[in-house]
Amino acid sequence: MRNEIDQWVKQNELDIKTWRQEMHKIAEVGFCEYETTYYIFRKLEGLGFTLHTGRAVMNEEARFGVPSEKELAQHEDRALKNGVPTAFLETMKNGFTGVVAVLETEKDGPHTAMRFDIDALPIEEEVSHAHIPANNGFRSRNDGMMHACGHDGHAAIGLGIATFLSTLKERLSGTYTLIFQPAEEGSRGAKAVVENGWLNGVDFFLSGHLGIRSQPVGTLVSGATNILATTKIDARFTGKTAHAGMEPHKGKNAMLAAAAAVLNLHGIAPHGEGETRLNVGRFDAGSGRNIVPGEAFLQLETRGKSSIENAYMKEEAIRRLEGAAHMYDVALEYAIVGEGLAAETDKYFLDKIPNATQSSQFINEVKDRMPLNGSEDVTYMMRHVQEQGGSACYMIFGTPLAAGHHHKQFDFDEDALLVAVSALAHLVVE
Amino acid sequence: MRNEIDQWVKQNELDIKTWRQEMHKIAEVGFCEYETTYYIFRKLEGLGFTLHTGRAVMNEEARFGVPSEKELAQHEDRALKNGVPTAFLETMKNGFTGVVAVLETEKDGPHTAMRFDIDALPIEEEVSHAHIPANNGFRSRNDGMMHACGHDGHAAIGLGIATFLSTLKERLSGTYTLIFQPAEEGSRGAKAVVENGWLNGVDFFLSGHLGIRSQPVGTLVSGATNILATTKIDARFTGKTAHAGMEPHKGKNAMLAAAAAVLNLHGIAPHGEGETRLNVGRFDAGSGRNIVPGEAFLQLETRGKSSIENAYMKEEAIRRLEGAAHMYDVALEYAIVGEGLAAETDKYFLDKIPNATQSSQFINEVKDRMPLNGSEDVTYMMRHVQEQGGSACYMIFGTPLAAGHHHKQFDFDEDALLVAVSALAHLVVE
Amino acid sequence: MRNEIDQWVKQNELDIKTWRQEMHKIAEVGFCEYETTYYIFRKLEGLGFTLHTGRAVMNEEARFGVPSEKELAQHEDRALKNGVPTAFLETMKNGFTGVVAVLETEKDGPHTAMRFDIDALPIEEEVSHAHIPANNGFRSRNDGMMHACGHDGHAAIGLGIATFLSTLKERLSGTYTLIFQPAEEGSRGAKAVVENGWLNGVDFFLSGHLGIRSQPVGTLVSGATNILATTKIDARFTGKTAHAGMEPHKGKNAMLAAAAAVLNLHGIAPHGEGETRLNVGRFDAGSGRNIVPGEAFLQLETRGKSSIENAYMKEEAIRRLEGAAHMYDVALEYAIVGEGLAAETDKYFLDKIPNATQSSQFINEVKDRMPLNGSEDVTYMMRHVQEQGGSACYMIFGTPLAAGHHHKQFDFDEDALLVAVSALAHLVVE
Amino acid sequence: MRNEIDQWVKQNELDIKTWRQEMHKIAEVGFCEYETTYYIFRKLEGLGFTLHTGRAVMNEEARFGVPSEKELAQHEDRALKNGVPTAFLETMKNGFTGVVAVLETEKDGPHTAMRFDIDALPIEEEVSHAHIPANNGFRSRNDGMMHACGHDGHAAIGLGIATFLSTLKERLSGTYTLIFQPAEEGSRGAKAVVENGWLNGVDFFLSGHLGIRSQPVGTLVSGATNILATTKIDARFTGKTAHAGMEPHKGKNAMLAAAAAVLNLHGIAPHGEGETRLNVGRFDAGSGRNIVPGEAFLQLETRGKSSIENAYMKEEAIRRLEGAAHMYDVALEYAIVGEGLAAETDKYFLDKIPNATQSSQFINEVKDRMPLNGSEDVTYMMRHVQEQGGSACYMIFGTPLAAGHHHKQFDFDEDALLVAVSALAHLVVE
Repeated sequence: MRNEIDQWVKQNELDIKTWRQEMHKIAEVGFCEYETTYYIFRKLEGLGFTLHTGRAVMNEEARFGVPSEKELAQHEDRALKNGVPTAFLETMKNGFTGVVAVLETEKDGPHTAMRFDIDALPIEEEVSHAHIPANNGFRSRNDGMMHACGHDGHAAIGLGIATFLSTLKERLSGTYTLIFQPAEEGSRGAKAVVENGWLNGVDFFLSGHLGIRSQPVGTLVSGATNILATTKIDARFTGKTAHAGMEPHKGKNAMLAAAAAVLNLHGIAPHGEGETRLNVGRFDAGSGRNIVPGEAFLQLETRGKSSIENAYMKEEAIRRLEGAAHMYDVALEYAIVGEGLAAETDKYFLDKIPNATQSSQFINEVKDRMPLNGSEDVTYMMRHVQEQGGSACYMIFGTPLAAGHHHKQFDFDEDALLVAVSALAHLVVE
Repeated sequence: MRNEIDQWVKQNELDIKTWRQEMHKIAEVGFCEYETTYYIFRKLEGLGFTLHTGRAVMNEEARFGVPSEKELAQHEDRALKNGVPTAFLETMKNGFTGVVAVLETEKDGPHTAMRFDIDALPIEEEVSHAHIPANNGFRSRNDGMMHACGHDGHAAIGLGIATFLSTLKERLSGTYTLIFQPAEEGSRGAKAVVENGWLNGVDFFLSGHLGIRSQPVGTLVSGATNILATTKIDARFTGKTAHAGMEPHKGKNAMLAAAAAVLNLHGIAPHGEGETRLNVGRFDAGSGRNIVPGEAFLQLETRGKSSIENAYMKEEAIRRLEGAAHMYDVALEYAIVGEGLAAETDKYFLDKIPNATQSSQFINEVKDRMPLNGSEDVTYMMRHVQEQGGSACYMIFGTPLAAGHHHKQFDFDEDALLVAVSALAHLVVE
Repeated sequence: MRNEIDQWVKQNELDIKTWRQEMHKIAEVGFCEYETTYYIFRKLEGLGFTLHTGRAVMNEEARFGVPSEKELAQHEDRALKNGVPTAFLETMKNGFTGVVAVLETEKDGPHTAMRFDIDALPIEEEVSHAHIPANNGFRSRNDGMMHACGHDGHAAIGLGIATFLSTLKERLSGTYTLIFQPAEEGSRGAKAVVENGWLNGVDFFLSGHLGIRSQPVGTLVSGATNILATTKIDARFTGKTAHAGMEPHKGKNAMLAAAAAVLNLHGIAPHGEGETRLNVGRFDAGSGRNIVPGEAFLQLETRGKSSIENAYMKEEAIRRLEGAAHMYDVALEYAIVGEGLAAETDKYFLDKIPNATQSSQFINEVKDRMPLNGSEDVTYMMRHVQEQGGSACYMIFGTPLAAGHHHKQFDFDEDALLVAVSALAHLVVE
Repeated sequence: MRNEIDQWVKQNELDIKTWRQEMHKIAEVGFCEYETTYYIFRKLEGLGFTLHTGRAVMNEEARFGVPSEKELAQHEDRALKNGVPTAFLETMKNGFTGVVAVLETEKDGPHTAMRFDIDALPIEEEVSHAHIPANNGFRSRNDGMMHACGHDGHAAIGLGIATFLSTLKERLSGTYTLIFQPAEEGSRGAKAVVENGWLNGVDFFLSGHLGIRSQPVGTLVSGATNILATTKIDARFTGKTAHAGMEPHKGKNAMLAAAAAVLNLHGIAPHGEGETRLNVGRFDAGSGRNIVPGEAFLQLETRGKSSIENAYMKEEAIRRLEGAAHMYDVALEYAIVGEGLAAETDKYFLDKIPNATQSSQFINEVKDRMPLNGSEDVTYMMRHVQEQGGSACYMIFGTPLAAGHHHKQFDFDEDALLVAVSALAHLVVE
């Protein structure tokens, strides 16, 4: 049967790559994946899965960092203009994107779940012809949004494996749940999926990521290590505007408070026990040039090797924000808008993966471990499965990278999609 | 005749205050005063002035800091929705707002010019009922824009004096040019008016400002001193984005460069010879929370008691920007997007004003001088007139202030409009 | 008699210049003027003044910013080595420097007081031959201390006028008090002199400064304006040291707190109503390179056109210090170690000085007013005299300057000393 | 024979602990260990070693970061006062401290070298009685210097093993070189020892450290990992002083440049591939409170998991320094005053140590590896030995710690000294 898998993958290569390119074109940021959700839904129709969308996918309260109603409405308008039917859009309104696809084989067997994240990033994609998506006509047509982390590939892998399971349905047993998850960026969506029960009773949980660092296509890492715990924070400083020429002393300068915070946040001492990270990703302050700025807004995140290091960073970060506000006598409000855990691939999978994928002609080398040094809210799912006695893994699918993740020239080798589908298919069949 | 003036002012009180409130409602930022220009044009029609609008008002190249075409287009859309006729709008397209109204008396006499600035600020106006415009229903209906510096009042004074001149036309001699100038905020519009020749051959130039600091209505300052020279600078830092967790060292952090610049810009030593000011009014950086920010944009301004102090501030400011860029290995581009000169009211007017206004019952006290401590691009006009041998003045029309200039609760006492019209009328008649 | 004055000054020119050079050589910082005090004492002996030294000069508690006992002891050691007799030194121990010299004429008449400050600055003096004191052999022989503000000249003027008064004693009436005041730098000594009663009952108070800005010798400014109010603050941040490699997260970084404070202190918005200043003059932090710094110490000062602007600066400064401490979770202690008031020369002297000095051949031009833009604790004396009904003045004695005040190449033209002595002598005789 | 070792250690326990306490009392910073060197020399006399001191120990040019002549002279004065004989002191003059002790057994055999660092830190030691050295009377009597990193213990271990070798001499073969190295702190002394040839031809190299993190006495780590590469930098900013009140704009503020540098240095992004560190350990700027600071001096260090990460940090650090200097138009001079390499314990020793020490009753547990996360210039020696084909190790001798390394309350359990001597003795005998 293993030969059949690879043959099947080869026959479906064009579809898989096309799906990726079409989704690359409709890049959408977290909780705004209206076009993407509709695209996935359409491709899954008729494959024999029960499809869940809208409020069924995520628990409303457990979502982190949902955009404002105004922003959501603008994205909904865009989706409407770009052809998402009103009725379907209505079910997703207010950021209820994503699809959960469940395949019941009607035969007893374990419950296997897989997760594919589907959101893009707020980056304006490269326009030069050196960038393949630009050159080959599938550059994002949604301004200011880009698949710069490979989630378009992840979604295409998901569609691939869904099609494969559909083909094979008669020979499978147990239950298969494919989760097309919104808002991984910022660690915002996974917890809400878990809270709606989709991981309850799952025995085997499969997930992974394309790229991370440049490796030849055909390399498979069976377990990413060092998935960092993370906290996402929004901070708003509110001071008082004043005429910058006449009465500068009457202003309470929120921008200076924020600038002082940013510099000092980046200077938090690293933790001696394990990696730590801090990034301020957005800074928006002031209204006009000759007005002492009365408002400033920051988006930041902390990370740590484990929750200990991350808790240290979070505590220090809040101290910096508070001190900066005090300096300039401005008010500070902050909110935790996302959190991610640390997690590890189970030994079960570290042993299983090399064996199961041995016969795949798409895979040249299986590596034991590679540090991710990033965060992933898939850890909520992994932990949930593990706490119930199931096994979870997080693989890395090797590919050369045109530029680093989150860079406007990010791109990967589409052949890596075939590796991923082949790997998952072999694991399922095993 | 002097008694007639005050009587005329009283009879027109309701009109003058209504004009102010109607223009307060349609607050528009510099070069985007499409509705305001149309409003002024309509009110001036039929008064006997030759009206100049569109490209006749300002020299295209001499305008500083014109918004992007995209922004202008959005404002043009708004104006269209709010009732500005397409044909009229067409003449103003791309930021050619403002009106120059010329009254030829057909009798020999001096050429008198007056300037009224008409633009608002990018501030969201106070909504609470303690704020009179909100309570009385004339709060700005244009989101994020507000008359927080009294230019609505200036424009109403201009309409008042235009009506007065019209009434009196038969008894006047010489030429009267009323300039309703766009984009005073940021010192962006005046120079372009001068370059189109409107101040050539002017003998007497009158201008002034409401408020500045709280004074009783009825107080008139005959010459503002300390109008600061100023330079407006836009700065853009361009670095490189990177994944903030995995490869922070591969990013070139433009936001940190900008934050370092802002803190150190505000720390430029004051000049020992005279006042200096620096304000960074806008800070916009980064795209997403987990992306090392690759772009940052600042809007700033320097000011100085004279061009010597301002030149010092400008030079130091550019040094801070350059050093910050070097620190973070990011590229720096900056542009000078506005400049204002220092200027002084002529002795001619310091002597003339107390006498000419003596009989006005609206004026209780004439003060010799009061420092402005702010900048005003009217100085381009004053200097131009003075260099040609004419005389120029810049008065202050006293009023209590509900809050400082450029504050969202800014408001003045509308009776001050009557004082201003009376003062100008007395000076014209004299 | 006026001719006699100038003749007398000419005859004593060599002495006056020699005194200045000898005191330049023994430059000593505030409260450590042991050699200088002894020098002045020796020169005053035998002139007929009652000389007060040691604890009689200043009230112990009212002295600001006295150096630590350890530092004082080091300076006392130095003075001993440099020839100050033990017995005389003993009376000055613990920073009780300075001399008050009182001349009773035994005839009824007004009480006239003059003040001459005698302290130097913690600056290493220029060594190059372009610097006249270095070239002519009177460079400071006390390492790290230099008369870079002209107080050596002030003290020489004081000795000059003392000698003059002594010569003229028979023809004078009333009382003359000459105060050779320690620790003007940092506004630390004057208040303590006032509190010991030396200004009680004074009718006329004369004081002044050499230089301020370059002017020709022979220029006399009868009243300095804009003497800034000031506050001197010491701040200590105490955190926790840690190994910078192994456990950086366990440190509490006092240096980072201080650096954040310094940047943000310098960024306090200027006051719109009048000049403000802030300077951090000392920063001392950390122990070793590989130790997270647990201690940091700052010396700073604020200034303002009046006590209103200075109070604003002081309040804001303390807020910045507090916020910085909070940011880094370090303790903050601060102390007010000096304060100076704003003050003005009385109209009495503004009128008197031009007349009284008219016949002086040393004086070419008397200017009415010139801004000082600096602080001076002589204001404690001026205010005290004025509050009791007396009159006070603060003159400026013009001289070209080789470099600005407080610069290591500071130097003045010694002929200005003759102008000053002549001016004071004319005022006394008048 | 193994039983004999432990017996010998027990018999010498009092001596070993006394040596440690006596050296704790005479704590001296790097290149100033005059008293300590003399103490060690005296204890080694008569044990049969050839003792090398003075310029024989270190190559003059290869020493990093030697204090100024003035500082060295002060330390030499102190040593003289504290009883180091003039003749002996003369040989060490100008920072030539340390002892190399060589034992020739006259029998063929391998060359074994051991290194013990002997310098202390510029920290004022805790005075409270909760701190054992203070309570038990061996607190540092040298002001501002303290053994806060356990090198007093290292030196005592060295004396212990020297005595042991001396006792056992008849039964040993080969050559034994014991290096009592100056100036480990700051990575300043080891390279100069290597350059004088002391590690040439060495077959086995033993070294180690007490503590690092709290562990029970009896724990031995056979190979520290993660010894960070490091660079030590001194930076001097030279601007221009000015009177802070009158002419602040004429100053070039070196302190602000340094403060900006410090904040931005601490904000260098961590390297994604491995640990990085940066610390500014000293900040010294300005002369007097009312003088715009013309000078600022920083001592800093970078570290990285390997020379790649350290090189990244060093390059970024220099960029920050340059940018800060440009911002304030001040001159920057910097010097590399110390460098340390990364290194690893050889597999030979990782295997050997557990076996060799198995029978020691002082050792309860041998751990394979533990990260040091710090820097150590012993790496110059390890690398030199390894490059010549020899084997090197760096052990950790477990002890509970009263406070972290480089903290004023740092202290360890003296029983750990016995563990270390026992471990080294077993390895030697093996």
